[in-house]
Amino acid sequence: MKNDLQTAVLGATGYSGFELTRILLRHPRVKPPLLLRREAEKGTVNLDEIYPQIAGNGGFPMEPFSWDKLEAAGVELLFMATPHELSREMIPEAIRRGLRVVDLSGAWRLKQAENRAVYKFEDADTAAAAKLDALAVYGSPELHRDQVRQAQLVANPGCYATSIILGLAPAVHGALVDADYGIVCDSKSGVSGAGKQPTPKTHFVEVADNLSAYAIFNHRHTGEILEQLGLQAGQLVFTPHLLPIPRGILSTIYLRLKRGMTSADLAACYQEFYREAPWVRVFGLRVPQIQYSVHTNFCDIGLCVAPDERRVVIVSCLDNLLKGAAGQAVQNMNVMYGWNEREGLQ
Amino acid sequence: MKNDLQTAVLGATGYSGFELTRILLRHPRVKPPLLLRREAEKGTVNLDEIYPQIAGNGGFPMEPFSWDKLEAAGVELLFMATPHELSREMIPEAIRRGLRVVDLSGAWRLKQAENRAVYKFEDADTAAAAKLDALAVYGSPELHRDQVRQAQLVANPGCYATSIILGLAPAVHGALVDADYGIVCDSKSGVSGAGKQPTPKTHFVEVADNLSAYAIFNHRHTGEILEQLGLQAGQLVFTPHLLPIPRGILSTIYLRLKRGMTSADLAACYQEFYREAPWVRVFGLRVPQIQYSVHTNFCDIGLCVAPDERRVVIVSCLDNLLKGAAGQAVQNMNVMYGWNEREGLQ
Amino acid sequence: MKNDLQTAVLGATGYSGFELTRILLRHPRVKPPLLLRREAEKGTVNLDEIYPQIAGNGGFPMEPFSWDKLEAAGVELLFMATPHELSREMIPEAIRRGLRVVDLSGAWRLKQAENRAVYKFEDADTAAAAKLDALAVYGSPELHRDQVRQAQLVANPGCYATSIILGLAPAVHGALVDADYGIVCDSKSGVSGAGKQPTPKTHFVEVADNLSAYAIFNHRHTGEILEQLGLQAGQLVFTPHLLPIPRGILSTIYLRLKRGMTSADLAACYQEFYREAPWVRVFGLRVPQIQYSVHTNFCDIGLCVAPDERRVVIVSCLDNLLKGAAGQAVQNMNVMYGWNEREGLQ
Amino acid sequence: MKNDLQTAVLGATGYSGFELTRILLRHPRVKPPLLLRREAEKGTVNLDEIYPQIAGNGGFPMEPFSWDKLEAAGVELLFMATPHELSREMIPEAIRRGLRVVDLSGAWRLKQAENRAVYKFEDADTAAAAKLDALAVYGSPELHRDQVRQAQLVANPGCYATSIILGLAPAVHGALVDADYGIVCDSKSGVSGAGKQPTPKTHFVEVADNLSAYAIFNHRHTGEILEQLGLQAGQLVFTPHLLPIPRGILSTIYLRLKRGMTSADLAACYQEFYREAPWVRVFGLRVPQIQYSVHTNFCDIGLCVAPDERRVVIVSCLDNLLKGAAGQAVQNMNVMYGWNEREGLQ
Repeated sequence: MKNDLQTAVLGATGYSGFELTRILLRHPRVKPPLLLRREAEKGTVNLDEIYPQIAGNGGFPMEPFSWDKLEAAGVELLFMATPHELSREMIPEAIRRGLRVVDLSGAWRLKQAENRAVYKFEDADTAAAAKLDALAVYGSPELHRDQVRQAQLVANPGCYATSIILGLAPAVHGALVDADYGIVCDSKSGVSGAGKQPTPKTHFVEVADNLSAYAIFNHRHTGEILEQLGLQAGQLVFTPHLLPIPRGILSTIYLRLKRGMTSADLAACYQEFYREAPWVRVFGLRVPQIQYSVHTNFCDIGLCVAPDERRVVIVSCLDNLLKGAAGQAVQNMNVMYGWNEREGLQ
Repeated sequence: MKNDLQTAVLGATGYSGFELTRILLRHPRVKPPLLLRREAEKGTVNLDEIYPQIAGNGGFPMEPFSWDKLEAAGVELLFMATPHELSREMIPEAIRRGLRVVDLSGAWRLKQAENRAVYKFEDADTAAAAKLDALAVYGSPELHRDQVRQAQLVANPGCYATSIILGLAPAVHGALVDADYGIVCDSKSGVSGAGKQPTPKTHFVEVADNLSAYAIFNHRHTGEILEQLGLQAGQLVFTPHLLPIPRGILSTIYLRLKRGMTSADLAACYQEFYREAPWVRVFGLRVPQIQYSVHTNFCDIGLCVAPDERRVVIVSCLDNLLKGAAGQAVQNMNVMYGWNEREGLQ
Repeated sequence: MKNDLQTAVLGATGYSGFELTRILLRHPRVKPPLLLRREAEKGTVNLDEIYPQIAGNGGFPMEPFSWDKLEAAGVELLFMATPHELSREMIPEAIRRGLRVVDLSGAWRLKQAENRAVYKFEDADTAAAAKLDALAVYGSPELHRDQVRQAQLVANPGCYATSIILGLAPAVHGALVDADYGIVCDSKSGVSGAGKQPTPKTHFVEVADNLSAYAIFNHRHTGEILEQLGLQAGQLVFTPHLLPIPRGILSTIYLRLKRGMTSADLAACYQEFYREAPWVRVFGLRVPQIQYSVHTNFCDIGLCVAPDERRVVIVSCLDNLLKGAAGQAVQNMNVMYGWNEREGLQ
Repeated sequence: MKNDLQTAVLGATGYSGFELTRILLRHPRVKPPLLLRREAEKGTVNLDEIYPQIAGNGGFPMEPFSWDKLEAAGVELLFMATPHELSREMIPEAIRRGLRVVDLSGAWRLKQAENRAVYKFEDADTAAAAKLDALAVYGSPELHRDQVRQAQLVANPGCYATSIILGLAPAVHGALVDADYGIVCDSKSGVSGAGKQPTPKTHFVEVADNLSAYAIFNHRHTGEILEQLGLQAGQLVFTPHLLPIPRGILSTIYLRLKRGMTSADLAACYQEFYREAPWVRVFGLRVPQIQYSVHTNFCDIGLCVAPDERRVVIVSCLDNLLKGAAGQAVQNMNVMYGWNEREGLQ
């Protein structure tokens, strides 16, 4: 098993990129990552000037990006914590150069063109893009562990999508769901999910003491959920909400069972499904709360079946910056290099 | 039309009771309310010792409760902002004495014994209680304006129930809903809804930076929703969540239409339904947020129909202490005395 | 006494301007204000498109600004809720046209050129500006009631400055303070004080769960405090902090008494000083909290003297958008037109 | 150097005790701590029932306390995360039994009887208590590293006290302070500092959107500050405030220099003073914020000198549960056993 892997992070200044960098810095099997930024004109900047919380542990220089620098440093694995347009533009070259890539954006997650349409990619008709769309592995280790192990390009899942897909996979893939009834996914996310860029939507006064639903019937993560669960658009509704907290997602998921089951029956199915998944916790009597999973890489799942043994409420929680982004990216790296999935994440 | 009505408030120290007192103090048609408390042993206490925010506007003495005091003061209308056990115990006597009563608790809201069971009332089998259960009017002016006008006992609706019933009434009563599909109500409330009593659940550190679902499949407001909308238990799921904000409720409601409609069609139905309801705002393009209705008596309703013209998301917001409690209580008083529903609430 | 005064508000879209508009709309002695905006290119916009919370009460058109419109509408009093550069630029013309003006910015608050320097006004050397600098009355009704009554131009005080000046005036003007010891003003403000513009500093994730000091030794309000209290720069330190709340200011003020006094003695001096000030509450046993004054026009002052009868801690609280901005502006209007100072503010 | 030290924690269910347990569980030089509780009647409880956030990592049984269990388990070091009354009562026996103890309460921090008076200890006059009062070492490794190394009983400092003592020590012990002028310490703390017990003061609705000063002139930590800095009561004022955040302290400290210095001069003194202190970060241009130190064991100190080179503002931040409690306790353990001070805390 490999040790001292050289990684690089492009986009360490965003919230996910910063969390990723912090995890890589203390991961026992990798060297300190090469930190790169696109805005060459700003020269080298220390990451602790932007995030003074890491000051006092030595310098963290971020240098202007170049392919030569990657090569000179012996980088094998490149993490892209970049906007999807940039990931879409740069990753074909990275693949051509033989790098393995974990992309945290939505650029390469979707297999079906109609789902990709919402992103309006400029390369939509090129053969190169099509080839990469086919090659990319959806980086959900719980669902695609073997493919991730072999993957050259891992498309790290969306934060909402992770909470919903993991919350539904055992029921849907176990054919427990009454498909006629429809599945409702009501998700609530902390503000770091909206990124570091200041906007009216992220202004403290607009968010505090408030809750708002947004992107009803047209959030970008919907396609991931449908594809990973093999559902039709009409079978599912997904509504995201913006919570007045910095981080964490709670998805409340509603479905109806095809045949009667108790909460204990259903929990047993879920426990079996996630038997080998160290980063999913299936809760019994107590439903999870955001607080339990924040600052961890866990996805916590609670299950409640109504007395009629048909109506089900599933509560799925995770930290949008960890299991919903940087933590899952490192979990994918662990799988790609044959390491223990827990490595560096505890 | 009556002026200078003498009211009394029992329970002015709770969050709802305090809001109610503040509204009554500036209502143009009522005298300052007589403030009463049950704990006779504490003697007379000024309300501004408990809520210094109202200091400087004169004293607000709260005296130990007695029926004689009510009579001596010429009280015609009694507001009960008390726990449901106390409302259940005291209101029969108030009715016997000829008082009109608006009760803010859940004591008299439910018509069906199976729904009342969750409260475990001790008087469940008495004829007197049965008579009052029948007599009580569910105080939703938008649905029962005429009955409220005549009522001697108004059972002021629950906060969650108000947001959901008003969000669903036009669709359900207009027979627009596909009953096979099921209705999902995912509600989120600020902490003042849990009352003023300190508990582990309301400790700042447990609530802040958190979101939690609770009382899944067994919240007390479920019965009100079913009764007011004429639904069976199996047709609806209602899940409340505790938000890290002091006040406000947002309910996200999911249903499927029986026949295809656009958002505009549906909004037109709602606008028509609430044409004469000054305290319901039907939103068009923009879905409401908690912030828009907090500190007002409005229930705000937004409507989104999916492109398939079947799946619907309804967003309903209100201030749990106003339209969800004290504001609606005063709105009921306005109806009971033939005043403009807006009076004293702007 | 005048009724039906026609006012205008320039800048109703900012937080202070919006609060001001809301107060004027329900003020019993003024007509609905004429709402104006500088960005002519955007045409007329309804204020409830920006603040849906006021929807449902009729339209609130904001029209592009012109002097002709002011004249045609018969505006007598103009409120400027604008950046100080704009106030500095436009108010000379308003004065020339005979309007009375209440300016909420820092443009005209300072009498001493060395204190004004921090604003870098471009008109610093013109005679017209100098004349207006002299003419402007510092709009603290508690300190300058008679001057405000006669004023053509009222410079509405800064939010921090109001909390500190009112907290110190009785002690300083009563010559109770040991000048050798120095006065420390440690102020904490909610985020609305930083304005509606999204910046990294007002991003939810940067503010929540945080507290930060800023502008140490160089905040713009320092000059107001020194001038109004007649202090030298070396006698005072003022440090503002950004609190993770939407609104409210608490200033903790430290001084030493020249001669021994108890808390009761000191409170008596303050009560006497503010005997005729309806919007200052001097607290006795209990020190005020932000919560008590938010959504009111009160400045609350609590006083604690140490057992040594020398060291003093003063706690001064107010709502930065009301007593610290829009509320005080209306209070100034009330004084300017000889109305009761409470009018429209309860 | 010792490895595999056996520790025990009494009081793991409080906020500090839980943080302490989490740190000990991943500390490379100690065995999993023996977890004990006083309420014997509740039997053995798993810590993850109280804190589900640690579920999934194995069980964490907390057993009823007995001295025999400590002995049987080979415990050498006992952490007391208990109320001060209990620490005062139990620690003499622990010392008699030859255990080393780190006590997180205020029981043994104070050397001067007049400062201890505020705690009203029942053993105030006994010789045994007096002996232990003398024996106890104030556990500030930055100030008393050598004594801590030898100590049998370490009194872990208070959270406010730590932020203030570390913020002032270089200036006071370096004789830079103008003693006539007085020192002002204005501290703001998150709510976890008030403990896990629900009270009206920690109710979410009372804390959110609020800020309050409390215990003015009589907070218990005042004595620690005076003793550690060798100051007289009249020279210092300390005012704590309750912030609407879960954790973190920021102290803003005001003093006057005896002789003129620039910010750079002063920073150099501080850097020199803390040259060998890995857990203090002296900030240069940028003053620290609570966010930088939360979830770390750092105390961050920023220094601003006014242009007059006399007035000084010091900003000192830390996490009240880590450097202010559990982190410092582990740091003390590291010193006591000759390990690197950073061990287990990164």
